Amino acid sequence: MSGGVALAPPTGPTIASRILRPDAGTVEAVRVLPAATLHEAAGRIGALPWQIKPVSPSLRLCGPAITVQSPGGDNLWLHRAIYVAEPGDVLVVHVSGAHDYGYWGEIMATAARARRLGGLVIDGCVRDGVLLAEMGFPVFARGLCIRGTGKDFGARGWINHPLLFDDVTVHAGDLIVGDADGVVAIPRERAAEVIAASREREAKEAAALRRIEAGERTLELYNF
Amino acid sequence: MSGGVALAPPTGPTIASRILRPDAGTVEAVRVLPAATLHEAAGRIGALPWQIKPVSPSLRLCGPAITVQSPGGDNLWLHRAIYVAEPGDVLVVHVSGAHDYGYWGEIMATAARARRLGGLVIDGCVRDGVLLAEMGFPVFARGLCIRGTGKDFGARGWINHPLLFDDVTVHAGDLIVGDADGVVAIPRERAAEVIAASREREAKEAAALRRIEAGERTLELYNF
Amino acid sequence: MSGGVALAPPTGPTIASRILRPDAGTVEAVRVLPAATLHEAAGRIGALPWQIKPVSPSLRLCGPAITVQSPGGDNLWLHRAIYVAEPGDVLVVHVSGAHDYGYWGEIMATAARARRLGGLVIDGCVRDGVLLAEMGFPVFARGLCIRGTGKDFGARGWINHPLLFDDVTVHAGDLIVGDADGVVAIPRERAAEVIAASREREAKEAAALRRIEAGERTLELYNF
Amino acid sequence: MSGGVALAPPTGPTIASRILRPDAGTVEAVRVLPAATLHEAAGRIGALPWQIKPVSPSLRLCGPAITVQSPGGDNLWLHRAIYVAEPGDVLVVHVSGAHDYGYWGEIMATAARARRLGGLVIDGCVRDGVLLAEMGFPVFARGLCIRGTGKDFGARGWINHPLLFDDVTVHAGDLIVGDADGVVAIPRERAAEVIAASREREAKEAAALRRIEAGERTLELYNF
Amino acid sequence: MSGGVALAPPTGPTIASRILRPDAGTVEAVRVLPAATLHEAAGRIGALPWQIKPVSPSLRLCGPAITVQSPGGDNLWLHRAIYVAEPGDVLVVHVSGAHDYGYWGEIMATAARARRLGGLVIDGCVRDGVLLAEMGFPVFARGLCIRGTGKDFGARGWINHPLLFDDVTVHAGDLIVGDADGVVAIPRERAAEVIAASREREAKEAAALRRIEAGERTLELYNF
Amino acid sequence: MSGGVALAPPTGPTIASRILRPDAGTVEAVRVLPAATLHEAAGRIGALPWQIKPVSPSLRLCGPAITVQSPGGDNLWLHRAIYVAEPGDVLVVHVSGAHDYGYWGEIMATAARARRLGGLVIDGCVRDGVLLAEMGFPVFARGLCIRGTGKDFGARGWINHPLLFDDVTVHAGDLIVGDADGVVAIPRERAAEVIAASREREAKEAAALRRIEAGERTLELYNF
Repeated sequence: MSGGVALAPPTGPTIASRILRPDAGTVEAVRVLPAATLHEAAGRIGALPWQIKPVSPSLRLCGPAITVQSPGGDNLWLHRAIYVAEPGDVLVVHVSGAHDYGYWGEIMATAARARRLGGLVIDGCVRDGVLLAEMGFPVFARGLCIRGTGKDFGARGWINHPLLFDDVTVHAGDLIVGDADGVVAIPRERAAEVIAASREREAKEAAALRRIEAGERTLELYNF
Repeated sequence: MSGGVALAPPTGPTIASRILRPDAGTVEAVRVLPAATLHEAAGRIGALPWQIKPVSPSLRLCGPAITVQSPGGDNLWLHRAIYVAEPGDVLVVHVSGAHDYGYWGEIMATAARARRLGGLVIDGCVRDGVLLAEMGFPVFARGLCIRGTGKDFGARGWINHPLLFDDVTVHAGDLIVGDADGVVAIPRERAAEVIAASREREAKEAAALRRIEAGERTLELYNF
Repeated sequence: MSGGVALAPPTGPTIASRILRPDAGTVEAVRVLPAATLHEAAGRIGALPWQIKPVSPSLRLCGPAITVQSPGGDNLWLHRAIYVAEPGDVLVVHVSGAHDYGYWGEIMATAARARRLGGLVIDGCVRDGVLLAEMGFPVFARGLCIRGTGKDFGARGWINHPLLFDDVTVHAGDLIVGDADGVVAIPRERAAEVIAASREREAKEAAALRRIEAGERTLELYNF
Repeated sequence: MSGGVALAPPTGPTIASRILRPDAGTVEAVRVLPAATLHEAAGRIGALPWQIKPVSPSLRLCGPAITVQSPGGDNLWLHRAIYVAEPGDVLVVHVSGAHDYGYWGEIMATAARARRLGGLVIDGCVRDGVLLAEMGFPVFARGLCIRGTGKDFGARGWINHPLLFDDVTVHAGDLIVGDADGVVAIPRERAAEVIAASREREAKEAAALRRIEAGERTLELYNF
Repeated sequence: MSGGVALAPPTGPTIASRILRPDAGTVEAVRVLPAATLHEAAGRIGALPWQIKPVSPSLRLCGPAITVQSPGGDNLWLHRAIYVAEPGDVLVVHVSGAHDYGYWGEIMATAARARRLGGLVIDGCVRDGVLLAEMGFPVFARGLCIRGTGKDFGARGWINHPLLFDDVTVHAGDLIVGDADGVVAIPRERAAEVIAASREREAKEAAALRRIEAGERTLELYNF
Repeated sequence: MSGGVALAPPTGPTIASRILRPDAGTVEAVRVLPAATLHEAAGRIGALPWQIKPVSPSLRLCGPAITVQSPGGDNLWLHRAIYVAEPGDVLVVHVSGAHDYGYWGEIMATAARARRLGGLVIDGCVRDGVLLAEMGFPVFARGLCIRGTGKDFGARGWINHPLLFDDVTVHAGDLIVGDADGVVAIPRERAAEVIAASREREAKEAAALRRIEAGERTLELYNF
């Protein structure tokens, strides 16, 4: 993103292949924190639509975002994104509101695993749910759907330009964390600050739990 | 509810702390009956929105309702309700149509368990889904969502005045029963009658099952 | 269906009891194929609404369709259909858009099992979810709902005339296959062709998986 | 419809060109009655989705139904239906849930007027709204939309077989009446009875209006 | 509302016949103010669902609220409310989410006009749209629908207890103002203050308009 | 847009003040063509959501797009856009899915008229509907809503970077045409070609109308 973030420019490239990523230490520090805690500690930002959930409840993911704007009912840009991404990256995909297609399955998960990607977050459906759960490659989606996608080589999409999920913007390189509760996107440049605030919050919550178990009321504990 | 049920009166209190509850024997008699059976036996009443389901499929709940009308995106009234409720009570919460927030999590479940409450039924989302399932405190919700709630001390809400879920009214003290199939609210004053009708229905269904397994057709069995 | 397929004619019969079915060998050949593969191999047709899913994730079904158009909030036509169907048949039910009722439960599953039916696919809800999962009789539905149905003997419904699920038509005798990913309807007269195309597709995908695991990219593999 | 009403049979024709119609006197008798009155007098049946409204508020229509099941985003079957219909007939069109296309415009309205058809009722959108209002040919639709339709010669549709609008079935030859309040479908064979009941209802309402204007209360008037 | 606002109490009355109203001067002062201005001046409160609009665009209404909670598909409580209301009162009706019925028509408008009521605001549909527009009695509704309502004497409803429209509560005696832009409810006890703030806002806006027409930019005018 | 189209870059500017526009002759040539014709002639592209309609049916607009991505419930970016735009420009606004606010009213229309802008297209609601219709400044919106907006100076929005309406992208400088049927966006660089194709289509349709009026059937005319 050296020369400016470009979103589907009429004449320029629609794939930005070089993006800034958080460093490995930051990713590992975030990996152990819950999505909800990160969302709160960052100031209640970055919560993706709650209907996006792991295809198997124990799956978690954490990594820098490769953002993919996909035309509805088409998965060509997801194929492309697998090879734009680097090991550890998480594909974050907006499907232009056309949820009910199976945009991803065993073949693509195998390709993504071969590339050692960090996972997939898609605001649509996928297929091969049982196989995906067995493979353990983390896929977060709205549900399972068998309806097949096409490949329209003329349709407009983009990779590594910003995405808009309702009121939430995701940029390439944002730190994406998903667990059973949902998915959050944390701006790369705020990661260190959010990690610190999350740890503080975790510590406070642990202390609060002890006091509540000992009989204190939340009303006084939090001065409600 | 001796002196009149008040719903958000302009000048009076918005928390009714004293309500009438079914007696302990009634609660225990109801506890072993399925929600669907109670709904049918009571004359097909009191079915809460079907999207409200246990966060872990094996959870069940049964107890008198503490009714909570919560402003959207705010969980201050849930905190208050934890301390209005008595052991065994079930919090029943309407969130004014704003489903996609995490109104409840580990802290509040710990507080509710410390108070020995009977469970939570909420027409919105919660967070900390894995922890809630482990704790075993029965939570029935629309789903899991990380989006954080605020605490608006000026916003209007109420406790122990009636709630309206589409066409179904729930009063404080109604007997609330939830299982994997859904949640039902039975009016306190009809509890004994509904228990009797439910047992009769259960017995009839057991007999019908035996006859069907023996080859009889439902068309003749029920005179369709 | 010798003399013409009749859909709720004003004066004629609304149950077509004699329909053409695929032969047993065809059903068994289809049974081992995934729903998504059949949908793709048939030319991306016959995908039922993706929200229809098995009540227990490991359930599968495969068999000829008995089509049931049911009035909303009424399950009389489902009872009738149990006895129109023959062993192995799958009931496919449209509930006129009124999803939130429990159209099916333990009693009906017991009757269907006694008749050795192949399963149920319904574009609405059912009840007794835990029992249905234990019984193992394959039920595919939108969810679980306790709200009770009536029996209106005057209401118009039909059996074994075509159904319309959004843009997908299902005919009596179509081959219905459901697994964790969803449900597909394959026209009876195209079954042999679709089986062949599905097997070819399965073989190609297995080969593609090996090449992808060996490091090849999907972009070149598929000439994207 | 001599030999049975056929809905998209796998092998037979999908256009039934000969249907039974109410006689001209019946159509004229119905023409002066409000849609709401006919709906009530017939026993509260046949109300089409309320979002279907005239493109200009003063338009009314009345005539026998030519029923058209159209694939979504395609208007080939509407062209065909214009030439299946006879003077006075009303095209009633279901678009398989894909509302947001402009299925009808100036060209087709001109063709329909040249054929002296009675009007169009469509559960989707149309275009050329200003011209349609000027032409005076009665079009009832969900709204105006510029999105263009295709012509898929392989897509399945049908003419003069039954349609299902949520829980309401419309048969070819049903008497269709539309005014500013909405659209109703009255079964042909019940037309005479419904006309009599509607007139009686109109007379009763006129008498009730006089008594209410004179000061009587509806509570006593109707024994509520 | 002397002894407490009661909402559908199990044993007490469900009609509160005596309510506090704003005085006539207040009603007249409010009558000339736009709904949007009152909403803003009161602190952005009381906006009813925006889909509720006048059946004829030039209609306006202003008066104290008679609040009516109606069971879905039933208009018995509207009949009752006509006779609980006093001249100038506005019926405000919640229909429990079942919008698509014609809850009100010529008969009821005639009765309401005979009682000299101030108008109707209903979160559902009405019928006889053309007649209502001609009569000039102000009706604000979601749209026009012919589907008929029943009268269930056992169904629970209430009059002059609070209503909840999403996140907005309306109390009996609130001042209701509706125009082409929408409907607002102003708490009776704040009416004087809101009138003053509205007039101030109107004056400020008039001054701002003059300055903008003279070439000033809104960015500087409002210090954005 | 010399150096690349930037969408909400983390560090760069979010307003692109210099954009390429179609020349005046092109705008005038397009102004007399219907939105539906342009959409078809361009290859069925650029149709904005059909619910966006003129606040008064006779309003039309035509001009180059100033694209505005607005946070939900906030109209600060609309104020800014009025002063980024030049005479004749059309503001095209996406409100992040939060439709039910009054984003625009008399003050802003007066400011836009003082700047001689060409109109407003917004995927949300506006207020002061009667005044806007009287002023004649062309406003296309989803409806009228009194709910007030805030001004959040920290919230992220952008001007003159691309917008996404479901599956349709609008770029700054696209030619926007709106009439009673709806709104279309035509890429600036394709304008000349689309004008020619539209005129050809208009001529063909006029010829077709004459032949249809003379009795020819559309089936033969178009070789269906």
